[in-house]
Amino acid sequence: MKVDVLTLFPEMFTGVFGTSILGKAAEKGIVSLQAINFRDYAGNKHGQVDDTPYGGGGGMVLKPDAIFAAVEALQQSSSPARIILLCPQGQPFTQSKAEELSKEDHLVFICGHYEGYDERIRKHLVTDELSIGDYVLTGGELPAMVMIDSVVRLLPGVLGNESSAITDSFSTGLLEYPHYTRPAEFRGWKVPDVLLSGHHAHIETWRREQALRRTWERRPELLEKLELSPKDLKFLAALKAEEQNQQNE
Amino acid sequence: MKVDVLTLFPEMFTGVFGTSILGKAAEKGIVSLQAINFRDYAGNKHGQVDDTPYGGGGGMVLKPDAIFAAVEALQQSSSPARIILLCPQGQPFTQSKAEELSKEDHLVFICGHYEGYDERIRKHLVTDELSIGDYVLTGGELPAMVMIDSVVRLLPGVLGNESSAITDSFSTGLLEYPHYTRPAEFRGWKVPDVLLSGHHAHIETWRREQALRRTWERRPELLEKLELSPKDLKFLAALKAEEQNQQNE
Repeated sequence: MKVDVLTLFPEMFTGVFGTSILGKAAEKGIVSLQAINFRDYAGNKHGQVDDTPYGGGGGMVLKPDAIFAAVEALQQSSSPARIILLCPQGQPFTQSKAEELSKEDHLVFICGHYEGYDERIRKHLVTDELSIGDYVLTGGELPAMVMIDSVVRLLPGVLGNESSAITDSFSTGLLEYPHYTRPAEFRGWKVPDVLLSGHHAHIETWRREQALRRTWERRPELLEKLELSPKDLKFLAALKAEEQNQQNE
Repeated sequence: MKVDVLTLFPEMFTGVFGTSILGKAAEKGIVSLQAINFRDYAGNKHGQVDDTPYGGGGGMVLKPDAIFAAVEALQQSSSPARIILLCPQGQPFTQSKAEELSKEDHLVFICGHYEGYDERIRKHLVTDELSIGDYVLTGGELPAMVMIDSVVRLLPGVLGNESSAITDSFSTGLLEYPHYTRPAEFRGWKVPDVLLSGHHAHIETWRREQALRRTWERRPELLEKLELSPKDLKFLAALKAEEQNQQNE
């Protein structure tokens, strides 16, 4: 997979592209990661890439010319399957979007910084507008890194077994059950007995129930999307009854 | 504000901490940013910070000892107001959480990588568990950067006027209206006439309606949380009627 990022701050990407999963995936040749300064495509002496908005108001707006020229330069070597604009107005990024993008050969991410984008970029150049969440960030660079990490880790050969196992527990649709490791007692706080029991069926039941409880307590809306077993439903009913009793006392 | 990040990959933060808003805020002395390798607090020869989970199963789990020791070392100079664990099981991070955190003096972010966290870290050390969204990432480093960016840009003196203006338009609760800048015509695509008219009241109405339309088309759930003017509601009613007509044709 080829991933190109258009940004005014390519140096932001050095640490992230060179480290951990992304660094290893690039080393293995599974992905090629490039951060390109689109100021190089401004086509004017001063490298001006933004200007004041028509109609007045504060802020600066990214001009269409440099961005179009930078994308077209990339298209000369390979036609990008998806041209993604990072913006708060975009569709919310989700795990299924990550899976969808992981099937493509070539992704381009366009990162604005402070500025808005000229609407013609949205209308006539990009294939996707995505947002990682409803919070205000300084630029599209961090969202691009987040999406690239979540996409690249899905590519075959990127994750070892040790790391994919943890991920799988997320894919049940429930929040993860609690984990414990050595020491068995730390400052007086002990690991639950069941985990030391060696009784696999009991451990499995405990973990499932803990995952259900945590999801119910923290993100009950996630439960609505799941198909739960009769055993799961019985456990949840018991949780609800327990809460009801506490409220009535 | 003091911000410390506990991570096994401090080099991931160099590019981001040194650039743009975060770099400038650090230079001005508004924030002090530090990425600390908690492996230095492992307290064993091999710097071992994780181990296999009690009860079996795949993956590795971060041991409590190094994390507790690293946080306690930080507490010797200043008591952190908030100790934040980055994890998919956390409460969803939002703009109001960013505002809340921006009022604190000292934040500590704990980043796991692949691994789960020993439950005793959650229960007995951290004050907050936060998640930036429902997608799987390799570690807590990118979420920490996202939160730090969104928090630091709220600190007084960090943003110049030119950048805060764009933000303000987000704070209406609507998605932003379309922006246009020079050239007035680009490859045959023209800037809407109203923006070139110089008629401020018309421009304002156009922008409000475009923001309403975009929000209604892309994120209708955002509209439910807003108090809209009678004029806004009339415009939305017209949009709905228009859609209805199209469906009936």
